[in-house]
Amino acid sequence: MKIRIGFGIDFHKLVEERDLWIGGVKVPHTKGALGHSDADVLLHAICDALLGAACLGDIGYHFPDTSEEFKGIDSKILLKRTVELVKAEGYNVVNIDSSLCLQEPKIKPFIPQMQQVIAQIVGISDKDVSVKATTTEKMGFVGREEGLVAYASVLLQA
Amino acid sequence: MKIRIGFGIDFHKLVEERDLWIGGVKVPHTKGALGHSDADVLLHAICDALLGAACLGDIGYHFPDTSEEFKGIDSKILLKRTVELVKAEGYNVVNIDSSLCLQEPKIKPFIPQMQQVIAQIVGISDKDVSVKATTTEKMGFVGREEGLVAYASVLLQA
Amino acid sequence: MKIRIGFGIDFHKLVEERDLWIGGVKVPHTKGALGHSDADVLLHAICDALLGAACLGDIGYHFPDTSEEFKGIDSKILLKRTVELVKAEGYNVVNIDSSLCLQEPKIKPFIPQMQQVIAQIVGISDKDVSVKATTTEKMGFVGREEGLVAYASVLLQA
Repeated sequence: MKIRIGFGIDFHKLVEERDLWIGGVKVPHTKGALGHSDADVLLHAICDALLGAACLGDIGYHFPDTSEEFKGIDSKILLKRTVELVKAEGYNVVNIDSSLCLQEPKIKPFIPQMQQVIAQIVGISDKDVSVKATTTEKMGFVGREEGLVAYASVLLQA
Repeated sequence: MKIRIGFGIDFHKLVEERDLWIGGVKVPHTKGALGHSDADVLLHAICDALLGAACLGDIGYHFPDTSEEFKGIDSKILLKRTVELVKAEGYNVVNIDSSLCLQEPKIKPFIPQMQQVIAQIVGISDKDVSVKATTTEKMGFVGREEGLVAYASVLLQA
Repeated sequence: MKIRIGFGIDFHKLVEERDLWIGGVKVPHTKGALGHSDADVLLHAICDALLGAACLGDIGYHFPDTSEEFKGIDSKILLKRTVELVKAEGYNVVNIDSSLCLQEPKIKPFIPQMQQVIAQIVGISDKDVSVKATTTEKMGFVGREEGLVAYASVLLQA
């Protein structure tokens, strides 16, 4: 058994007149995440953790934000392509643990759906995908609701 | 052998007239961490990493800060309950590595005691619990001594 | 097979009239990282992840910034010594995944060289060392180009 670790982090600004996509789910809120794609911070962190574990570069390398191809793209497609790249190297995903840092809104009601969406794309059980959430206790740019941050850790097995 | 990864992060404000509990140890300081419980940022990050690895939700789900039951509670009790939840799923803790980001005070003298406290609650050797510390070089809210952050990574084995 | 996880984080200020060493490579830029050593934030995060995984303390414990011995030191030497400490405990490095958060400059062209430098010091293939990079979307102290942050995750095997 060959096991590998990966870790990803992603940041997006929160602005008006954008949708808030987190973990493949549209979360109702007065602000949304700004970015070239749909700016799904959680899926991006997971993509980066998967790519890092397989030593395949990062999300900016595979899906550059200067490319028209990825403008406004659904990040679920980016995760699907990432999983294909990782599997092509002979790896399976053991489990994913992720943490979302944002001040508002409360995402707890949406977490089970996020876990299901991610699990289905990755091709694992939703008992192998964890999404957690915390505020930053109103500190820093997350606390001022200027943006949000996501962290993801993954294990791969060959 | 089934192995799983978990990652946790926690934030607390530093304010006057509160005790500073870190890793189950009371650290002498002019400020303490603000929170519903004793606000032990390190134990909370470890709880979240353990829960995430076992796909059992997060600390806010199990120990909500709206509950009277957890008001002022010793976070060592929260860690103990978390470990029970994780073991009930058939997992043992392989090792814990954690990092504390705070500007002041120096916690180096207290680290061996923190490792012993955590190891005893988790039921592993204190050679399997790592606590590290760094400042943020006076940058950001940690650098301005407004708050502190802890990160924890864990491996579980079934 | 005995496997262990480690996680490291490091911070440095960006100031004028300093070189910018990242991952053992000198990156051309108008600012450099401030620190007692060459302030290589990425190598420091990797050192801390390795030390944490082996429960050997942290970089501040082994290479104190109050010591003349480490003033201006090349962090590649610190990584080499760290790897020796970890191997002396009977561990081999399985893989390293790291993330660099900085606003400017773009480090993408330097990443393959960083991975080679790190892999050679650690004694593993450069297919087992991942370096990823992201901006913070101009948020926080990284976004204001006041400093940079690195994260590293490692797996060890005994």
